[in-house]
Parts: sequence; C-alpha cells; structure tokens
Amino acid sequence: MQNNVNDIIIALSTPPGSGAIGVIRLSGKGSISLVNKYFEGVDLDQKEGNTIHFGKVISEQGRIIDESLVSIFRAPKSYTKEDVVEISCHGSSYIIQSIISLFLSVGARQAGPGEFTLRAFLAGQMDLSQAEAVADLIAADTAGAHDLALQQMRGGFSDKIKALRQELIDFASLIELELDFGEEDVEFADRDKLKNLVAKIQVVIKRLMDSFQLGNVIKHGVSTVIAGRPNAGKSTLLNAFVNEDRAIVSEIAGTTRDTIEESLNIKGVQFRLIDTAGIRAAQNTIEQIGIGKTMEKMQDAKVVIYVFDVLTSSPKDLHDDVAKFLDASSKLTAGSKQIFAANKMDLDPYTKPEDYYLDGLISQENLIPVSAKNNMNIEHLKEVLYTTVVQDPSTADQSIVSNIRHKNALQEANISLDTVLHGLSTSGMTGDLIALDIRQALYHLGLITGEVSTDDLLDSIFTRFCIGK
Amino acid sequence: MQNNVNDIIIALSTPPGSGAIGVIRLSGKGSISLVNKYFEGVDLDQKEGNTIHFGKVISEQGRIIDESLVSIFRAPKSYTKEDVVEISCHGSSYIIQSIISLFLSVGARQAGPGEFTLRAFLAGQMDLSQAEAVADLIAADTAGAHDLALQQMRGGFSDKIKALRQELIDFASLIELELDFGEEDVEFADRDKLKNLVAKIQVVIKRLMDSFQLGNVIKHGVSTVIAGRPNAGKSTLLNAFVNEDRAIVSEIAGTTRDTIEESLNIKGVQFRLIDTAGIRAAQNTIEQIGIGKTMEKMQDAKVVIYVFDVLTSSPKDLHDDVAKFLDASSKLTAGSKQIFAANKMDLDPYTKPEDYYLDGLISQENLIPVSAKNNMNIEHLKEVLYTTVVQDPSTADQSIVSNIRHKNALQEANISLDTVLHGLSTSGMTGDLIALDIRQALYHLGLITGEVSTDDLLDSIFTRFCIGK
Repeated sequence: MQNNVNDIIIALSTPPGSGAIGVIRLSGKGSISLVNKYFEGVDLDQKEGNTIHFGKVISEQGRIIDESLVSIFRAPKSYTKEDVVEISCHGSSYIIQSIISLFLSVGARQAGPGEFTLRAFLAGQMDLSQAEAVADLIAADTAGAHDLALQQMRGGFSDKIKALRQELIDFASLIELELDFGEEDVEFADRDKLKNLVAKIQVVIKRLMDSFQLGNVIKHGVSTVIAGRPNAGKSTLLNAFVNEDRAIVSEIAGTTRDTIEESLNIKGVQFRLIDTAGIRAAQNTIEQIGIGKTMEKMQDAKVVIYVFDVLTSSPKDLHDDVAKFLDASSKLTAGSKQIFAANKMDLDPYTKPEDYYLDGLISQENLIPVSAKNNMNIEHLKEVLYTTVVQDPSTADQSIVSNIRHKNALQEANISLDTVLHGLSTSGMTGDLIALDIRQALYHLGLITGEVSTDDLLDSIFTRFCIGK
Repeated sequence: MQNNVNDIIIALSTPPGSGAIGVIRLSGKGSISLVNKYFEGVDLDQKEGNTIHFGKVISEQGRIIDESLVSIFRAPKSYTKEDVVEISCHGSSYIIQSIISLFLSVGARQAGPGEFTLRAFLAGQMDLSQAEAVADLIAADTAGAHDLALQQMRGGFSDKIKALRQELIDFASLIELELDFGEEDVEFADRDKLKNLVAKIQVVIKRLMDSFQLGNVIKHGVSTVIAGRPNAGKSTLLNAFVNEDRAIVSEIAGTTRDTIEESLNIKGVQFRLIDTAGIRAAQNTIEQIGIGKTMEKMQDAKVVIYVFDVLTSSPKDLHDDVAKFLDASSKLTAGSKQIFAANKMDLDPYTKPEDYYLDGLISQENLIPVSAKNNMNIEHLKEVLYTTVVQDPSTADQSIVSNIRHKNALQEANISLDTVLHGLSTSGMTGDLIALDIRQALYHLGLITGEVSTDDLLDSIFTRFCIGK
C-alpha cells in the first residue's frame, strides 16, 4: 500500500454502475484548491467547510464534464481530518470516469482500498479497532452484526483496553526506572499493586475473550443442524421456522437426502438452519451419502435440534437413541449445544413433556414440546434457540469481541500477563525481566487499538476494505 | 405514477450494492423536519440550506441505525425546488434498507422512477426537454452523446423554441381578438408579418429536424458495415480500426462467416463496425447463411465501407462489382453512405487512386487508398468516416435534436404551419380557422418543452428514469 499521506487521493465512493448520482471523494492537503481550479460557479477556496455548492466541473480543455454538487470539508473537521471534497455528479460511468481521470491527470492519485479510513486512523480520528468496525458495518447484514459493528466503531471496548494499558504502562515505567538505579535495590513499583492490576486486567481480558464466541455468532451466524430419526418431522420443522415450503415434505421416511440450508433471523442473530437426512442405518446407498453429510454438518454445528415424534417413539425407545445422539455429539462437536423438540405433542393427549426427560438425559429447559405441522410452540422454540446461543441477553449491552484478530491479541496479552504474574511470584526475578513481559503484554494490547501497528498489519486490515471508504 | 406533489418522497439515489457510501434522498415540504426527528447531533431545523451535518440516524425505538452525513437544501434552492435532504450513510444494504424503512414508516413514500426530476419539471426548475436530457446524460457513454445531453440539459434549443412560440402566441391572440369584433372586418394581425414569422419558424424547425439524423447518430452510434469481395481484406481492416486481432484473419477466402461487431470511437461518436462474410455467390451452405446476414446488416447500416484489393482487382473487374454494389445499396438502404477503401495500395506501385474512380462511380473524396495490414492511411479513413456522418463539424456547436419525440413534435408543428401558410394564401380564409391551425402548431411545439403536457406523456417520459433521480 502506498502510504504517502501527502498525496491527494481520489476514488469513487458509491457502488459502480449507473445510478441517479455517483459520489467521488478526494482527500488531502490542497484538495479543495485542486477541485476549485476545475470548478465553475463559486470560488470553493472562499467557502467554509461543511457546505455544498452547485457548479460545473470543467476539463483541462474547458469542456463541461458535468453540473455537480460539490461538498467541501475543511481539516480537521472531516472524515480523514484532512481537506476533503465530495463531488456528487450525475451517475453515469462516462462522467464518473471523466472526472476521476481529470483529477488523476492534474496531481491526485487513485486511493487504495480503505485508504480514506487508513488516513482517519493515522490522523487519530479513530483507533484501529474502530477503523476495522467500519468495514464490518458495511458488511453487516443482520441487526445483530450491525449493532455489534456500530458499537465497536463508536469506541466499543477499546477505551477500556486503552485505560488498562495506560495503567500498565505506568507500572512498566516505574519498574524501568528502578533499573536506572542499578544496584541500589530501590522499588518504585509496588509489587502487590502490580499483581492486583494484572489480575484486574486479566479478568477483563478473559471476559472479552469469552465474549468472542457470542461476537462470532452474531457476526457470522449460527450453524444449526436439525437432526433426528427419519420421519420425525425435521423438514416440517424447518418449514415452520421459515414459514414456507422450502423442504420437500412427505410421509415417506428418508425423503430428505440433501442437506438443506435456510436462514432464520431471530432478534437480529442469523441462524443457518440445516435440515438433514434422517440419522439411522442407511437403507440404500443414496441415503448413505445423505447421512454422511449429516455427520459432516453436525461437526460444524453450534446447535443441534434433535427432533423426535412422540406418536411413534415411546420414552423407552428414545432413551437409547438420545443417549447415542448425545454420545455422538460430544465426540463430533466440542461445545455444541443440544435442544430437543418433542414433535406432534398436540396429537397425543396421553403424554406429558416430563415423560421425555429420559432419566435426566434431557433437562426440562431443553425439551420443547412442539407441533411442527400446526406451528405450535415454534416461537418458543425460537426463543430457546436464541437464548441457548446468546446465553446472557444482558451481554448485548457489554463489550463484545467479534474480530478474530482482537481475540488472538487478547490471548497473547493474557499469556504475557501470566508470565508477569509468575515472575512477580518468583523470588529473585529481576525488574528488567518483568518489565519485558509487561512490554510484551502492552504490545499485544496495543495491536488491538493500533497504538502499536506495523505496515503489514495495516496492509492486511485495509486491503479488505472497499475502494472509496 | 403517483403525482401527489405534497408527499415527502424518498429513494436511494446511488446504485444498489455494497459500497463505501450510499446516498438516500428525500424531497418535499417538511422533509428536513421529518429527518430531524430521527437525527441526533444537530438541530437540522435551525440550519441553513446547502450545509452538511454529522450525526446519528436513530430508529423509532431509539436504536442507532448509522452515523451519517446529512446534507440539507432549503426550498427553492434545491433540485426539486422543495426542501431536500440527502443522507450519506455507510454503504451497507442493511443500513440503507433500515433508513428507508424508517422514513417510509413515519410518513414518506417511495419515490417513483425519475420522480425527483418530475418535481423539478413541475416546479419550473427545468423544461421537459431538459428533464429528458437528465436521463440521456446518465445513459451517455461517449463524449458525443454526453455533450449532446449536457447541452440539452443546459437549455439547448428549447429557449429558441420558447421564443418562437411566444411570437406565434402573440399573433394567435391578435387574430382571436379580431373574432371578437365579428362582422367589423378589422385586421389587428398583419398577415404579411405573420407569413414572414411562420416562414422564419419553419426554417428553424427544418434545421432542427435535419439535425436529428446527426443527433441520433451521436446518441445511438453509427452502424457501419464493412463489405466487399472475399479476401479483399475486410477483417484486416476491422483489426486495423480497433488495433487488435478481433476478427480471425486468414488467407483463405470466406474465413469470416459470422458478422462481427466492434465498437470504434471517433471524436466521441461511436461507430459499430460490422465485418461481414464476403459478398459473392455462396460456395456452400454455411457461407450462404453468412451472406444472408450481410444483406441484413447492410439494410440497417448508416455507412458501408466497400473494400477491394487493388492487387487482385483491376479497375475493369471492379466496375461491374461496384455498380452492382451501389445498385444493391440504393435498394437496401435509403440514405446510407458509401465509402470505398482501395486496399493494398502500398503493394502495387503501378496503380494510382484515380485509376479507381471507375468512370465517376466513385468520387475522389470517397476513395481512400489504404493498407489495412500496414495500418496505412487508416487514420484518414477514420476521418472520412466521421465527416461522412457528421457532415458539417460546425453543427456540433448548434442545436441538435436527438430525441425522436422532439423530432416527431417538430414534424407535426411543421405540418400545422404549412396549413397556416396555405390558409394565409387562400383568399377568404377566416381568422378563426387560421387561429386554430396556429394553436395546433403551438400545441406541438409546447409538447417539446412541456409547456403543454399530459399525464400520459409525463408517465412515458419519467418511467424510463432510474429510481432516485
């Protein structure tokens, strides 16, 4: 990436293609004057920031390229904290290309992906995790992912990290000061206070690391497998979830062979529902393939909804099935959750949900009596599905980590802090070694907010942005 | 189309899809206050027009939808002459949908195609031909079409039409005044002056009608067929034109069977070059099909470049060919132009161009000696191609009609004016009949600028616009 922050950069900021308008953005010192040279109507150089002006964009040869609205933003009151111009032109590819070519030929250069946001970061407009959230926000397609990105963009947990980091920096400085006094054996840094601080930071870090699972779920959705014996009503349940006849439903056992995916949005969290071929000894080869896929899908699942038919399965029959299913689940997927849907409950007045707890194999909260066909209790099942994943709804108000890079940095910082604690508990550990471990933790925490960054890191983050942002 | 101009209308004005930013536009009385209710940061109601404000768009439930830049324009200083708001939000489909849904649910309605421009027209911001040019401008993909649309959008010939129309209206009023005096036989309107005016208007109308051919060519491009005997070098010429090996070139006669289209931009005018299978008695069936296509293409051609090979064709051989070609051309295409490319001139030092005038069948200007293979004189051929279509380059500065609707209206107006002239020359023609014919001419001229318009007409014009313009 060309990181020359003295250039005037230019890019189309709206999606390519024909539309009513296109917006071309320029940023950099002198960008307003540059546009002014090729703008007729008003003298932009004389105008205040945050104002909009109508006029003509004129080519070097004096030809009118377009009648446009030009918005000017004066440093530091702009996205990049530099002078910024936005040209809102007629949305024709010819005009957009002509305007961009014009300014490229008179000194501006094409902006790289995310380069406006990179400049905003470099100018201190936002920290790195906030900058990353800008791309997340644009990519977000559910309310949950959107809220998460917006929260992170608006500061999120980075203020917290910065504050803790500052406390650690102060301690590191004190310890490093001791080193200057060499043999004198002074202790500026109170070791007990440091221990307490490290412990406090680790609590925060661990909570943030724990939040990643939820953050990841909200950002990327929840893989949810619907499993169970043939004809238990899996496809009917999928249909009930998505309110349409997505899966072929039939009375014939083994109808569903391909796994079927549907997307279900519960309170802003996306569940990818996967209907599967019945899990049983395959009766023919094609079905065998379907069952193989089921196992595959179960491996990736965050939640498995096990469906059984109370009309055809007595609690006694089920005990074995469910035990085997739970056993397979624990082997296939570490950390997946199980929910049990007792289907066709409305058709059998003689059974009660508690008949199906199966000597404690299934807990009361995890057994949901439903009728997939008659849409009975489906909303409740959705509610259970949601709370199973988003265990503590209150976490939605707290800081949630959704970025794997942040999670890894937290993990590294945590390891360094463990070493710090170990050092503090080891008699004879010298201050310089402890200071080194603290610096290591600081480094990893700093990577999150960008107080520490490398060109490679910035490259890998901003090349994932779209052009013009 | 819902033409209720009291509604607040809303639409996405940038192309759909993910991008750095999306711009949502609202127009209508109260639109600024409406947005202000769901905007946190500044009080838009207190702000002047043509200013930009950063803040948060908030849902009815108080949830933050986005941090956006909001531009406000106060009536009448806006595109529609109404209060206008443009929300420049993060370019995520989720955010764009959320913002549009929000305002739809609190009183705005989805704008129809071109409805912002329709309002601009209804408010007198622009006349109808200018409004039509907005859509042309967005669709323009060559410099010529762009300049044409821009000129029309900036007033073009409509001022001229309006002025002439006003003079006619004055005359019509005078004649109608005579009618009030019944039997008294007064003449307020000088018949000779009226004749002169009508003649003057007809000169303008005819010039505009004549300009349509050029306007149409600039707007839609020029269908240009490359014809000639097999192996004359048609495909090589096409390649020379477009500087790449688009057509398969071979020494074998009859290589090209499919017609091949390439686009060539000469001074902003788009020429659609069509290479054809050699025109001769087909030697097999596949070639027969190719020749059938050639004839088809020739029917639609504006220009046919007839290529011959001076090495293999003596002037004597050619005379017959060219006579037949000219005969076929005149039958197939009324008004198409012919250019003759004498190919491989560089390889034969013994021939001179004038040898190929063929007793006047080909004029000096229309015979271009070239070497397609060695790129000799190709630029000159392009020049001839251009001037053949754009006969008088100076017309580029004049008013050009490119819209078939305008051309038809001019034609109708012209017919009515003929009738007026006829009436004026007929002794005993009463003023009321002459006035009627003048009104008829006024009606047709008024359709162009929209001084006369019907809902159907507006519908048919604006439904061709994109949403958000």
